[in-house]
Amino acid sequence: MQSVDDPIRNLIDELKRLPSVGEKTAQRFAYFIVALNDKNARKMANAIVEVKEKVKVCTICYNFTNLNPCKICSDTKRENGVVCVVEDPRDLMALEKSAVFKGRYHVLHGVISPIKGIGPDELRIDELKRRVEGGKINEIIIATNPTKEGEATAHLIQERLGNTNIKLTRIARGIPAGGDLEYFDSQTLTAAIMNRKDL
Amino acid sequence: MQSVDDPIRNLIDELKRLPSVGEKTAQRFAYFIVALNDKNARKMANAIVEVKEKVKVCTICYNFTNLNPCKICSDTKRENGVVCVVEDPRDLMALEKSAVFKGRYHVLHGVISPIKGIGPDELRIDELKRRVEGGKINEIIIATNPTKEGEATAHLIQERLGNTNIKLTRIARGIPAGGDLEYFDSQTLTAAIMNRKDL
Repeated sequence: MQSVDDPIRNLIDELKRLPSVGEKTAQRFAYFIVALNDKNARKMANAIVEVKEKVKVCTICYNFTNLNPCKICSDTKRENGVVCVVEDPRDLMALEKSAVFKGRYHVLHGVISPIKGIGPDELRIDELKRRVEGGKINEIIIATNPTKEGEATAHLIQERLGNTNIKLTRIARGIPAGGDLEYFDSQTLTAAIMNRKDL
Repeated sequence: MQSVDDPIRNLIDELKRLPSVGEKTAQRFAYFIVALNDKNARKMANAIVEVKEKVKVCTICYNFTNLNPCKICSDTKRENGVVCVVEDPRDLMALEKSAVFKGRYHVLHGVISPIKGIGPDELRIDELKRRVEGGKINEIIIATNPTKEGEATAHLIQERLGNTNIKLTRIARGIPAGGDLEYFDSQTLTAAIMNRKDL
């Protein structure tokens, strides 16, 4: 048995904190790091420290950022009238990669989940309401995932913003590009048929 | 697009160096790290730096270690007469976990692989020969994996140590515990039948 002052054992244990990383994967990572040269290992360690030192939450959209307001919120070339509400920063990142959306964002940092004990107050919904009340916004695209929790969150946002004069929209459901009909559930297929488009 | 001075982007890129970690997994890891508290993030970063600062190779068995000779080589309670030759430190770690082996080790740091350009000189075979010539060793268990490369490496070791008076053994092939015959190749099944044991 190896003692706790064993640096490899310690690194394996630290890496096991990462999501879905078990003992075997952590071992592979740890021995990979042992084999890195000093400079590259230090770069990796610094990247972890830096992200903690520099990354905060944008006080407008609540995305993670090292600038405040974040790059997107301070970009004068983007539309002010449309705000896309997403569950988390990774969803925002995916949308940015597709480059389809040129408005502003609002990051909820989660969805309603009674199991995880996440209620409306844990999300940034009040902050969204305040942005809306500040004027300038014409449309809010609710882009939470089409899961049970995502839908419940979308409904809640609809409720909370219901008395405002704003246009609320929801991202479309359907068959994703490259998808095969036989692998999708009937809810998705129903949406794909109901929301069919003229050719 | 995010610029290179974006700490999250930088961390994602650093984490993508890890084996079998692509963009999506690196993103999950990075946002997990962003959500860690400062202390835990720093512990993870320090574990990386420390492993590089403290971990060297044992000058007897060539396992990674922060002590020289390593704990196993300097353990007076272990048998000196038997040396188990393994491909890499993770194989050694697996054997130690099983606690079946109480002798010494020799870590090759790889196997012969023409594709990866790894020949006999890249492995610690000469070092093994020198250990053998130093006397005291009665048996060498060649525990390279039963893959093409592992077998080739086992043969090479056999060749190089052939003129010594030492007993060379090879780990047994067969069906692993919990295994189902239908999922194993005929080479494995042949070994399982040929090496059958009296009950």
